[in-house]
Amino acid sequence: MQKHRTGNFFEDFRVGMRLRHATPRTLTEGDRSLYIGLTGSRAALGSADTCAAQLGLSRRPLEDLLVFNTAFGKTVPDISLNAVANLGYAEVRFLAHVWPGDTLAVESEVIGLKENSSRRNGVVYVRSTARNQHGQEVLTWIRWVMVHKRDHGAACGPAEVPATEPVVPAARLWHGDHGPAVREICGLTGVDDLWEDYATGERIDHPGAMTVNDSDHSIATRLYQNTARAHFDGFAMAAAGGQRLVYGGHVISLCKALSYDGLENALSILAINGGSHVNPTYAGDTIACATQVLDKPGLGLAHVGALRLRTIGIKNAPAAAVVFPPAGEGKAAHPANVVLDLDYTIAIPRRGR
Amino acid sequence: MQKHRTGNFFEDFRVGMRLRHATPRTLTEGDRSLYIGLTGSRAALGSADTCAAQLGLSRRPLEDLLVFNTAFGKTVPDISLNAVANLGYAEVRFLAHVWPGDTLAVESEVIGLKENSSRRNGVVYVRSTARNQHGQEVLTWIRWVMVHKRDHGAACGPAEVPATEPVVPAARLWHGDHGPAVREICGLTGVDDLWEDYATGERIDHPGAMTVNDSDHSIATRLYQNTARAHFDGFAMAAAGGQRLVYGGHVISLCKALSYDGLENALSILAINGGSHVNPTYAGDTIACATQVLDKPGLGLAHVGALRLRTIGIKNAPAAAVVFPPAGEGKAAHPANVVLDLDYTIAIPRRGR
Amino acid sequence: MQKHRTGNFFEDFRVGMRLRHATPRTLTEGDRSLYIGLTGSRAALGSADTCAAQLGLSRRPLEDLLVFNTAFGKTVPDISLNAVANLGYAEVRFLAHVWPGDTLAVESEVIGLKENSSRRNGVVYVRSTARNQHGQEVLTWIRWVMVHKRDHGAACGPAEVPATEPVVPAARLWHGDHGPAVREICGLTGVDDLWEDYATGERIDHPGAMTVNDSDHSIATRLYQNTARAHFDGFAMAAAGGQRLVYGGHVISLCKALSYDGLENALSILAINGGSHVNPTYAGDTIACATQVLDKPGLGLAHVGALRLRTIGIKNAPAAAVVFPPAGEGKAAHPANVVLDLDYTIAIPRRGR
Repeated sequence: MQKHRTGNFFEDFRVGMRLRHATPRTLTEGDRSLYIGLTGSRAALGSADTCAAQLGLSRRPLEDLLVFNTAFGKTVPDISLNAVANLGYAEVRFLAHVWPGDTLAVESEVIGLKENSSRRNGVVYVRSTARNQHGQEVLTWIRWVMVHKRDHGAACGPAEVPATEPVVPAARLWHGDHGPAVREICGLTGVDDLWEDYATGERIDHPGAMTVNDSDHSIATRLYQNTARAHFDGFAMAAAGGQRLVYGGHVISLCKALSYDGLENALSILAINGGSHVNPTYAGDTIACATQVLDKPGLGLAHVGALRLRTIGIKNAPAAAVVFPPAGEGKAAHPANVVLDLDYTIAIPRRGR
Repeated sequence: MQKHRTGNFFEDFRVGMRLRHATPRTLTEGDRSLYIGLTGSRAALGSADTCAAQLGLSRRPLEDLLVFNTAFGKTVPDISLNAVANLGYAEVRFLAHVWPGDTLAVESEVIGLKENSSRRNGVVYVRSTARNQHGQEVLTWIRWVMVHKRDHGAACGPAEVPATEPVVPAARLWHGDHGPAVREICGLTGVDDLWEDYATGERIDHPGAMTVNDSDHSIATRLYQNTARAHFDGFAMAAAGGQRLVYGGHVISLCKALSYDGLENALSILAINGGSHVNPTYAGDTIACATQVLDKPGLGLAHVGALRLRTIGIKNAPAAAVVFPPAGEGKAAHPANVVLDLDYTIAIPRRGR
Repeated sequence: MQKHRTGNFFEDFRVGMRLRHATPRTLTEGDRSLYIGLTGSRAALGSADTCAAQLGLSRRPLEDLLVFNTAFGKTVPDISLNAVANLGYAEVRFLAHVWPGDTLAVESEVIGLKENSSRRNGVVYVRSTARNQHGQEVLTWIRWVMVHKRDHGAACGPAEVPATEPVVPAARLWHGDHGPAVREICGLTGVDDLWEDYATGERIDHPGAMTVNDSDHSIATRLYQNTARAHFDGFAMAAAGGQRLVYGGHVISLCKALSYDGLENALSILAINGGSHVNPTYAGDTIACATQVLDKPGLGLAHVGALRLRTIGIKNAPAAAVVFPPAGEGKAAHPANVVLDLDYTIAIPRRGR
């Protein structure tokens, strides 16, 4: 059974190892339609070609998280097929628009390894990069994931834990090129709130809520060609006393879509500074979320500013029930109904003078 | 929490008020694929580019109800986010084909208001119009919806109820330009029944039936970017002793798709004269339908005629169980398993001389 | 009720009868996206335009089974609307790539009829052919299906059972034109196993498993415009003491997608030699599969060889539980958890000298 693919286990990784993930993927308007159908995304930049043109773009770019989830999915067979848990993200940077018809190719480099004291598993740190068909970087990110050892007795090297930035600094944020026409987004969304209208510390309770169905998350996760068994193999999950888990990236997409109300003029995601899937989401759970403005980093631009946001996703409770614990306290700071704690930075037009 | 969007309540509307709905939406072949996957639509005009060419069109237009549901969805955040119930439609007119790549922008005008005697809510009448990227009207419709008041004590003006036409008259029906080649549709569908072969009063029992799954209606309703909470927030619906409602427009789409068998050569919908979601549909319900030919209005054309149809959708019973009560008797005339009573007009080729 | 379409019954068929199925269908990138979302397909040829170009194709062809299922769906209203069971396939030959934008038109010829001794139904044998918009054959197949009689007393002719080939011979296999660049697929999939690396008799346990949700199979089957009631009408199925059946073609698609791991460099399906839906699949079942290499027919080509494979799909058990009984023993040779026994031939690059 030499061709029974079992994926990499902890002891198979080496710091500096490079993995070229299979296979490149062309994304199209068909993927966008499905993304909208699965998440209810209303992001203005992705909604209409005419809107994109009005804002100075040649056409609609693909939704940021469609790109992120597709690129992420490519890494699963090599990195996290034998994962215990996905522990965290850092330095997720969106570096260029991805257009329908573009092809993403994804590579990863192992940048850290730390065996756990149980010697049954260990944490693998990877930096992954998605490039388009021109070789241009469109997305890079760091994630760390706890991976099983195949052989608990296997000898592993000393721990190497990479330093990661708690927040992607403004100087490393990429923003699309926008002239003053970008403010016409207000005419498209019918909402006038721009960069100047958000205050650090401000809280936004997003009014919507979305019940996740089994097919919703299964279709989304398959669309991303993510093969992690925990999302698909209900038989094995039940045999282990559990049930299928909703892919965390789908929960991020749902919260992003729900956050439209209150952040209507957001242009695109510039970075994800950090994120944690605090508790699992299962089919049948209803997701709501609230957002706090953490910071308003200047981009040094006349027409576009940035908002650093913290969105907390909650299940089976309204957005008003979300509590924002002090940042950096980890999962223990959250009650059991919190499913997501995401720190990210978006671009939004400035009113200017 | 200034950015907690709560939508408009009854007392926020004024007759003559114009609302430009967010945001325009480009529809593509991806949306059509999903529409077919969600409804099973087999409409000949949407099935193949070669068919469209044979019938004299440059390519496949998008399905009428994909256009209707998308345009309708745009109005929800402004008109019916706080709706008690969607009460009715009138004068729904399809005025031009919509092609893949076209962008729809939707506006509404408040044309009537009537506070209910309870003073807890009132009926809002709006005329909505969808235009393509060239500014051409592609769809207009009137609907009325019962909307909550935010403040039961708020003073409201006198009732203004607009007059609506019970049937869109033939002179106001738009039909695509078709030469004699339109009759080649018979070769595509394998069915010879044309305008002359339908008789006023004739009944057609459509043989199919479709069980609605939670993901089906959720994906459809999200595809239309319709944000009405009753379709998505299972937690809140259960807390109120209920469950998620299937969006009525999805039920219309299902009945239209089921009605293919018996109306194979229908070209497109010209108008919806009126419609009522008689009882709610829930996931797990199986929808069937029957159609009665109400009238055969001439369009004054050599190659195309119109059929005014009444389709009644029923749940968890076969099409043969549908009873056609006299028109205009309202919901009370129907048993509890009727979900839709739709009066609409389609175009179909004429055999001619 | 003359327009209540009831489909053909056994006594309606005649050997030599030709049926032109309604209606042609244009397939697009939207259909591919949905196909990937519903099955998790990772086939390299369909994954990226850049991959296709590297392998010498102008762009990504559509997935073979998307084409097969769409073409098959077209035959249902005429052939199997009144089917008791789909009994088998033979001589399924894929004769050309189908590209996004291509339109399929499907015809069938009745090639055999055999009334059952009960005189309540009989077996109909048809050869079906799908052609593209240029009239080129892209797919032909034989299937036989047990169909109800409308009138048990109807007189039927003598049995005529066509001879079918147990295996499509190599000389009748069509393969795309590939130069030596086809071996670059290894760089795309990250796997080096080519034609020479598979041995007759070798077994591959595919590691994945996929739980089927009601919406998954419903959306897939509607996408194919397949109208067989057993897949959609939960009310009627429950009234008869059963439940909706998952369309067998969806199970084939799932097994094909799962078989990616271990057969990563497969280029396309050349033929399905035979297949049986051994037991029904229902929503909630989890599908896994294993494959045995039956043969390695030479294609007489320098760069591409063929593998004849037998894939057995199983429900609610891991791939390791699959047992390969001797070929040709039929359904009785399989335990009750086997859902598919498929004998097919794929193209895969040769290492060459």
